[in-house]
Amino acid sequence: MADRPLVGYIGLGIMGRPMVNNLLSAGYEVTVWNRSEPGIAECIEAGASRGTSPAQVAQSTDVVITCVTDSPDVEQVMLGDGGAIEGAREGLIVVDMSTISPDVTRQVSTAFANEGVSMLDAPVSGGDVGAIAGTLSIMVGGDKQTFDQVGPIFDVLGKTATYCGSSGLGQTVKLCNQIVGAVNILAMCEGLILGAKAGADMEALVMAVSNGAAGSWMMSNLAPKILQRDFDPGFMLKLQQKDLRLVMESAHALKVALPGAGLVHQLFHGLEADGLGDEGTQALAKALERLAGTQISA
Amino acid sequence: MADRPLVGYIGLGIMGRPMVNNLLSAGYEVTVWNRSEPGIAECIEAGASRGTSPAQVAQSTDVVITCVTDSPDVEQVMLGDGGAIEGAREGLIVVDMSTISPDVTRQVSTAFANEGVSMLDAPVSGGDVGAIAGTLSIMVGGDKQTFDQVGPIFDVLGKTATYCGSSGLGQTVKLCNQIVGAVNILAMCEGLILGAKAGADMEALVMAVSNGAAGSWMMSNLAPKILQRDFDPGFMLKLQQKDLRLVMESAHALKVALPGAGLVHQLFHGLEADGLGDEGTQALAKALERLAGTQISA
Repeated sequence: MADRPLVGYIGLGIMGRPMVNNLLSAGYEVTVWNRSEPGIAECIEAGASRGTSPAQVAQSTDVVITCVTDSPDVEQVMLGDGGAIEGAREGLIVVDMSTISPDVTRQVSTAFANEGVSMLDAPVSGGDVGAIAGTLSIMVGGDKQTFDQVGPIFDVLGKTATYCGSSGLGQTVKLCNQIVGAVNILAMCEGLILGAKAGADMEALVMAVSNGAAGSWMMSNLAPKILQRDFDPGFMLKLQQKDLRLVMESAHALKVALPGAGLVHQLFHGLEADGLGDEGTQALAKALERLAGTQISA
Repeated sequence: MADRPLVGYIGLGIMGRPMVNNLLSAGYEVTVWNRSEPGIAECIEAGASRGTSPAQVAQSTDVVITCVTDSPDVEQVMLGDGGAIEGAREGLIVVDMSTISPDVTRQVSTAFANEGVSMLDAPVSGGDVGAIAGTLSIMVGGDKQTFDQVGPIFDVLGKTATYCGSSGLGQTVKLCNQIVGAVNILAMCEGLILGAKAGADMEALVMAVSNGAAGSWMMSNLAPKILQRDFDPGFMLKLQQKDLRLVMESAHALKVALPGAGLVHQLFHGLEADGLGDEGTQALAKALERLAGTQISA
């Protein structure tokens, strides 16, 4: 692999586009492909080359990155008709930055390994804000030597890239991250709802709780939004639900009881049924508000 | 009230003793009383005067602080035989720093108000470490003017004193704090248990999760202890249970559904039944370990 490998990027959504931009800014040549046109145009304007299929992108680059929505999307662009595997050759590296099933990850990785291609799973946290700023937290599974080879690219895309173990374990750690985040949101909402119904000064409550042993990123960043009745998505509830579905699949496969994460998953179902799937995850507060017959506000 | 009021301190446990020390170091004259002797001796050596009863302490000081375990303890030292209320006079201020029921707080406060005494509820978070360092977070309910008068004393005892509203609302905010903290521990333990059973690098997992949107004080401070199988108490499980009992009482009185906090309360019951009440709250991991048939370790 050259000092500055040719990069292919497949999946130009709200995460992929800023990542491509950051790679271009860092001096990488990037060939892009997307299932729909709008994402492509923006990247071409920014200096990327247009690929004609995942297979062609893989044929013409050294490191192919994918960032799509769910397990079937990864299977399609990797192993489907015209998929990246059709451009496989010894020494090619594939990096999947989507959040998908650890089991599917291992299946896709094995298919590539059979063609002499090393694949990393490298899901991220930090949202579109982190993708734009290049401050993502990247959780990586796969071959350690490949992880080291891709290091300079991870340095461009994120603040930290953490090696978590063999293939699939990057995905597992990402799912663990989603468990903790989701249940931290429940924690925050339960603290807020009791305070609200008791008539506490809610800004004082958020300040007091944030500064101590009960503090969390969610409390510091999402509780003030709830007090302002701001339910715009930093992270969409329906995407958190997709991740919690993957969590529940892993929990089922591994026989691990996750009562708190299961509870949040079910409460989110109720909010999705009410058409709130496009709101931010802080809308979990609305589920507790309905149960308590009161509203949280500043 | 004089510029530097005479202070009475009732309740010389692991929280009260360092608080008395800090008041003495700041130049306050402090008269102390405790239900048992050992706590008294340490404070007398440090320069405090010995009171003969809560009533006598109240008679001879301007601001009486109490810090005992539970609601009945506060009722006893405040309103019982020889209680502080027998030393009540116009202008006396009473500050209860115990964590107790908001309803009992309001009853005791009303009894004092009838004698011309203003009472604040001022529970704290930060544990014995915070009490020693004078960095407690103090959550205060009661009369705002009294809160301002006691400000210089709070400055000695804590890093922040937050005014939360009328009598009882300091207790309510403390209970909200305990809800958030307890459910954050559940969040942490669920993330750890899935990662452990899947075979992830656990130190990498804790680092990756701590640095992002799922980060929390609990994740940064207690997860490393769990990986080292260190279950010594920073905060004892049985004391968290006492606070969660108060939470459940408030939730019942106010009709607020707290499914996550209720779940943690029940899981803690199981650990208490197994004799783990004196361990730290991070022992919640053991409940999930048993359900998953695996152990979390570095």
